[in-house]
Amino acid sequence: MEAVCNQNFNNSDMESSYGIVEKQFFHIKDENFTLQCGEKLEYITIAYETFGTLNKKKNNAILVFHALTGDSHAAGFYKDSDEKPGWWNIVIGPGKAIDTDKYFVICSNILGGCMGSTGPSSTLPDKTTHYNMKFPVITVTDMVRCQKRLMDHLNIKQLLSTIGGSLGGMQAMEWSVRYPDMVKSVIPLATTMKHSALSIAFNEVARHAIKSDPKWNNGNYNDESKPDTGLSVARMIGHITYLSDESMREKFGRKLQNKKDISFTFDSQFQVESYLKYQGEKFVERFDANSFLYITKATDYFDLEMQYGNGSSVKAFSKAKAKFLVVSYSSDWLYPTYESKAIVKALKKNRLDVSFCEIESTLGHDAFLLYDNRLNKMLKGFLSSVYNGIKNEI
Amino acid sequence: MEAVCNQNFNNSDMESSYGIVEKQFFHIKDENFTLQCGEKLEYITIAYETFGTLNKKKNNAILVFHALTGDSHAAGFYKDSDEKPGWWNIVIGPGKAIDTDKYFVICSNILGGCMGSTGPSSTLPDKTTHYNMKFPVITVTDMVRCQKRLMDHLNIKQLLSTIGGSLGGMQAMEWSVRYPDMVKSVIPLATTMKHSALSIAFNEVARHAIKSDPKWNNGNYNDESKPDTGLSVARMIGHITYLSDESMREKFGRKLQNKKDISFTFDSQFQVESYLKYQGEKFVERFDANSFLYITKATDYFDLEMQYGNGSSVKAFSKAKAKFLVVSYSSDWLYPTYESKAIVKALKKNRLDVSFCEIESTLGHDAFLLYDNRLNKMLKGFLSSVYNGIKNEI
Repeated sequence: MEAVCNQNFNNSDMESSYGIVEKQFFHIKDENFTLQCGEKLEYITIAYETFGTLNKKKNNAILVFHALTGDSHAAGFYKDSDEKPGWWNIVIGPGKAIDTDKYFVICSNILGGCMGSTGPSSTLPDKTTHYNMKFPVITVTDMVRCQKRLMDHLNIKQLLSTIGGSLGGMQAMEWSVRYPDMVKSVIPLATTMKHSALSIAFNEVARHAIKSDPKWNNGNYNDESKPDTGLSVARMIGHITYLSDESMREKFGRKLQNKKDISFTFDSQFQVESYLKYQGEKFVERFDANSFLYITKATDYFDLEMQYGNGSSVKAFSKAKAKFLVVSYSSDWLYPTYESKAIVKALKKNRLDVSFCEIESTLGHDAFLLYDNRLNKMLKGFLSSVYNGIKNEI
Repeated sequence: MEAVCNQNFNNSDMESSYGIVEKQFFHIKDENFTLQCGEKLEYITIAYETFGTLNKKKNNAILVFHALTGDSHAAGFYKDSDEKPGWWNIVIGPGKAIDTDKYFVICSNILGGCMGSTGPSSTLPDKTTHYNMKFPVITVTDMVRCQKRLMDHLNIKQLLSTIGGSLGGMQAMEWSVRYPDMVKSVIPLATTMKHSALSIAFNEVARHAIKSDPKWNNGNYNDESKPDTGLSVARMIGHITYLSDESMREKFGRKLQNKKDISFTFDSQFQVESYLKYQGEKFVERFDANSFLYITKATDYFDLEMQYGNGSSVKAFSKAKAKFLVVSYSSDWLYPTYESKAIVKALKKNRLDVSFCEIESTLGHDAFLLYDNRLNKMLKGFLSSVYNGIKNEI
């Protein structure tokens, strides 16, 4: 099933990609850094990567956000690594939709993550032990506030754009209402203003699967004994929601793994079964179960409407000043098009400059991560237009 | 959340219901009873219930099939029990859509089940131990063949109708092609001719959750130590697929369980979380984990097209003679309307008498189990018409 997983990667990616990148670390030490839950985190590390060059006017910076299980490695390759490139290498690079010859792109691993930023698997400041479930509950607001500190550190006072899909789109929108003066444009892809009951339900079952694994041990596991089975079930559940009925029909249908007749056993005979099993097994190698709990909870808590508008989506965006490009995918049933339309409606009522496109696709929610020339063209055009509008500003 | 679970039941149900029913048992002893997988089951018990009276001509019998986790208790109440009535009490009873004043209704627990019929939790004929995972893999065909033996036992040579939703609909259709001369009409509700990749995927993850529970112990568990957590996750996954985005939005949205502010903990704060947890916990009290494995596998194997038509749905129904009433629900995303339309198309190409209706509903797949006057009227009209057409036959 390798082909399916690496479908974004082809040989030309190496040549056309941004090239070699390095993960960097930014440390926040602030005894007054209070999270939305009320708890304090004095020491925070944020892992990040940059692509392209910040110009003299410092007006070409684009902040890109990863989704649930992504990381700061949005494009290019790590030195001495022939692994596949960053997760959005198809979009970010020289001459690409997010053109690193023109723009300075930053992507950081979210707070709560397990790819270099502080999260439940980090050690406590006194190095005695890991946070595990003693890590405070974090929210999208907390993630965005850490990113703001990183921007301060990089001396970036204006963002040409904030861009992300899914949980990344939530962060992109949060930026526009929390720091309206800093954000020139926002591109939320395949996302929502607030998590629906359906999305909460899938997340809760996935969390339940992890917590039901005896090896989870209330979050106190170690490398020798991790809740791999629970996390694998959680991933399998998630993975189904990232695809669509159509894409699964096209890709798998009722095809058998070994092209033989049905074996009348409980083995994974259907290709779709093997594929999901493979996805589950691969995932546990790279992701931390506690991080999965914290990040999914942050998405469930996400409710821009309530937090910034006391229940009104129009009021929630009342402070936003950015231009928006909202994109949904027709077969995304996790964050269906009607949820993007609700965003557009709220923005329009605030007389903001908003473009909207529903991309016809059979690929489900994950479509935003796959190569699509329609998206690339839209991104390129929209970013150029915003950049042309501001680049002569002092 | 009790109100949600018992939404089909109101005080008038007792008065208008069929009344007291008793579970009966039919025993098959046949050393040559070979299942589709090739294995033999010499001793089979089928639990069943009947409602109404078989007339002298024996032409008023209707066979009703339950879905995945149902049982033979389709209507009425058990003696001395003030529990809720049978699962389709809203449809089956005196004067109801399936009118027990006119028709003789039979419903049996499927082979592989755990509500009285032989399944993995049954003891081996020598009473030494339970089958557990040594139970042979069963199929919808095997279930239907057991029901045929039950009909022979009851001396019923003709069925006015075979009716069921979901897995019940699969059995209803299988009857029409396996015993075409016996079946006068078929009513498949919210079902499919073959399980899609999406449906297989959800089933596989649910099975994976059960098998990942250490208490499953390769199927060798006992009452003191059952894979309740795994089965509960499996049920939660299933339950989401029985609802719909719309119904969950209407019923739960982002409502909190205790009407307080968000608590920033991992408790089940959203109502949808508590509801799913409750569904999972209730389910493990009444259902056997191994039965869940076997029955979901039978639905995954179901492929009428391949089994009876060598890949052609038209050929699959070529022997059918019955009249059909096919019903789908607009918000059913487990067996979407296009799958029912494929059935209708295949039937029409065989010039069979077929009526089709997509019921507009926000209730998702489970809609067929909930009170709906539109369905009731259709069932009543269709059954009357079929009955009027044959009741004067000799």
